[in-house]
This record gives sequence, C-alpha cells and structure tokens, in this order.
Amino acid sequence: MARAPEAGSDVHRERHRTVLETAARLICEQGYEAASIQDIADACGLTKAGLYYYIRSKEELLLEIMSYGMDIFEERVLLQVLNIGDPVERLKACMEKNIFLVTEGWSKEVTIILHEHETLTGAARAQINARKKRYVHFLESSFEEAVREGRIRPVEPRVAAFSFLGQVLWIYKWFRPDGKIPAAQLAREMQDLFFGGLEIDLKKTVSPAKMAAKNAKKSASKKTAKRSKAA
Amino acid sequence: MARAPEAGSDVHRERHRTVLETAARLICEQGYEAASIQDIADACGLTKAGLYYYIRSKEELLLEIMSYGMDIFEERVLLQVLNIGDPVERLKACMEKNIFLVTEGWSKEVTIILHEHETLTGAARAQINARKKRYVHFLESSFEEAVREGRIRPVEPRVAAFSFLGQVLWIYKWFRPDGKIPAAQLAREMQDLFFGGLEIDLKKTVSPAKMAAKNAKKSASKKTAKRSKAA
Repeated sequence: MARAPEAGSDVHRERHRTVLETAARLICEQGYEAASIQDIADACGLTKAGLYYYIRSKEELLLEIMSYGMDIFEERVLLQVLNIGDPVERLKACMEKNIFLVTEGWSKEVTIILHEHETLTGAARAQINARKKRYVHFLESSFEEAVREGRIRPVEPRVAAFSFLGQVLWIYKWFRPDGKIPAAQLAREMQDLFFGGLEIDLKKTVSPAKMAAKNAKKSASKKTAKRSKAA
Repeated sequence: MARAPEAGSDVHRERHRTVLETAARLICEQGYEAASIQDIADACGLTKAGLYYYIRSKEELLLEIMSYGMDIFEERVLLQVLNIGDPVERLKACMEKNIFLVTEGWSKEVTIILHEHETLTGAARAQINARKKRYVHFLESSFEEAVREGRIRPVEPRVAAFSFLGQVLWIYKWFRPDGKIPAAQLAREMQDLFFGGLEIDLKKTVSPAKMAAKNAKKSASKKTAKRSKAA
C-alpha cells in the first residue's frame, strides 16, 4: 500500500469516508459483533495498522459512522434551508433535500446504521441523539411557525414533524435508484401529498392575519372538541 | 417447571407468544449473534429443553418472530379493513388500526425485528417479504381505486403507499405510550394530515363521475407535464 495520506488533506478525508462507508456495509451485512476489524481492513484493502490510521477503535467506529451521517445530513439538508424565511417554503425545501440525500446522497448503509443501530451507549449515544433531536426540533418549530402565521391549518407540531420524518426516512427501505420512480418525481409527489392538505390557498380563502386569528381560536378550543369526538 | 402445556391449547399459544416476545427483546438488546439459546431460555424462565418445546432452532426463531408479527398484523389490521367498500374509508380505517397496533398492540421489539432485521435468507426471507408485499399491494390498489373513482386527486400509488407506511411505521421509533400524545389523537391527526390533502370534498366540488373523468385525463397527460416541469 502507498504511504498514508496527510491527516486533514483531501485524500485523507476521501479515504476516511471510504473506510466509514465500507465498514457500514460490512456491519449491515454481518452484524456489528460478527464484523471484525480484520474483515473491515480486508474490505478496505488496508492492513489492520493501516485501518487504525483512520479509526480509533471498533467501539468508536459506530459513533464515527453515525457522526459522518449526521455531518453530511446537516451540510446538505439542514444548513441549506435554515435561513429560508417562509416556514412552508423552508419545510418543502427541507423535504426535497432530505429525499435527494436519502435517494442519491450517500451509502444507504450509513443511513441504516444512523437510524437502526442502538449499540451506542453513554456519551456517544447522547451526542448522536442530541443532533437528531435538533432536526426534530427544527421541524416542530417550523410547523408551529407556519400555523401561527396562518400558512397551514392547525396541526400538532410533533405529529407533523414525525410524519414528515417517517415519510422521508422510510424511503431508504424501499426506494431503488433503478426503479420506475425517479428521485425528482418522488420528491415532488411527497411534497404535494404532505403539504397539499396542510397548505391554505391564500388567494382563494382568507388573509394570513385572519387565518392566524382563526388558528389561534381553533387551537384553544381544539382539545375539548377532540376529547368529545374521541369519547 | 410445570409440565409443558398441550400443543395447540390456549396455554401453549400464550407461552409460545411470550417466548417469541422475550426472544425479540433479547435479540434487540444484544444482537442476534450475541443472544444465545441459553440466554433466551433463562429470560423465559425455561430450561433449554423447555425452550425447544416452543421453538425449533435459533435459526428459525427470527422467522417465527417475524411470522408472529405478520400474523398479528394481518389479524388486527388487514383482515379488519379488507371488506370496506369505499377505498378512502378503507385506507383511513387501515391507518387507524395500524397506528393502534404500533402504539398499543404488542411488543415493540417484534416490530423492530420485522422491519429492521435482514438476517433471514432464502425461503424464510422470501416468505416474509411476500407477506409484506401483499400489504403494499393492498395499499397501492386501494389508492388506485380511490383515484379511479374520483375520490382523491391523482397520485402515484406506490409513492402514496410507502408514504402511508413510512408515516405509520416510523411511529415505533419515537412514540412513548406515556408521552403527551395519546394514540387516538395520533391516529386522528395522521389521518387528517395524510388524507386532508388527498380527499376531494365532493359536496363542494364536482360529482365523483366528473372527477373520475378529470383524473383519467390528468393521468394521461401527467407524465409529459411532469417531465417538462422537471426539466
């Protein structure tokens, strides 16, 4: 093998990324316990010592894979949409970018490990969970804002946030890049499906101010109404 | 330990169910490779021989857990709604029953194994996948029927089916039975969210026959329109 690339260089980052994606694939195929450091090194075309140049320990490998997944997600999705002023446009752009990431963005196995592996414990687990929660909170507060501004009808922000996430993240379980539905069509159809029912057509109905007042009123009487309906 | 209950008896079925749920919990906690038959027997309060009265082998245990999950799902969800005539009412009832199953129905670990474990191979895997596909197909054809009858606006049935599934099945990842959102509210809000945008208010708009004609027309020109929009 050639000399190890300098830490921090583009080549180093690229190789590190390949190591994490290869390890993710092996862990998904064989299970975390069964996939040995030797297996991972072999799959990467590295010696064990060569592999340890990129990762600190097998225990930290899962954390590194998950952190890598969260880095890419934040870079390609969250940071791209955070500053969009209108909450509905922000959420729609977020859905599109997240769908593109899941369908085209990076190795499916990284996504699987990010969302299905529970092996992390203690501080490592807390670290990943905090980053996931930041995304949920971003979605919740965007939905809240959209209701407050009269842009969508009243909705429980937590239910809306996790419905959004479920719809988008379940994609990695069924989507085939060579299937009959291209990613761009998928993104557009899911946006229509999700927001078609939420978004209020301002031209056809009332002003945002009126709708906001209506939503505030509805929101106040919602719990009582729901309880009697459920009973 | 008491004498083993007669095969086929209620006690036997109940114990078998407990064994599968206990094994599911252990496999989720420790991983399939790490959880030994002895561990599973211990957790069930059985000897190894006692455990083998309920399961054939560790290899078949995953298949049994998944089959058990599919049995309960079909019994409590699919069979309950199959005969509802109106496709939108059928899908709404299906969503509600599936949400109740995920939130209250049975051990969360069975759901996790059903949807996240890929360890099955060959015929066992094909058997479970065929049952899952039957559900997807049921959803797809119900959405198709709803579009054809002018009950919902045109939608790609596959995208609608997997959006429905993602929204409903992602619930096991975040829902807490002791959280602030009761299952009944969750089901109602998700139905509103999902169908609010799809369902056409027949009183306010056009007759189903007219809408069906409109959908057929739209459907025919959809691909071209979409392509030019995407370009």
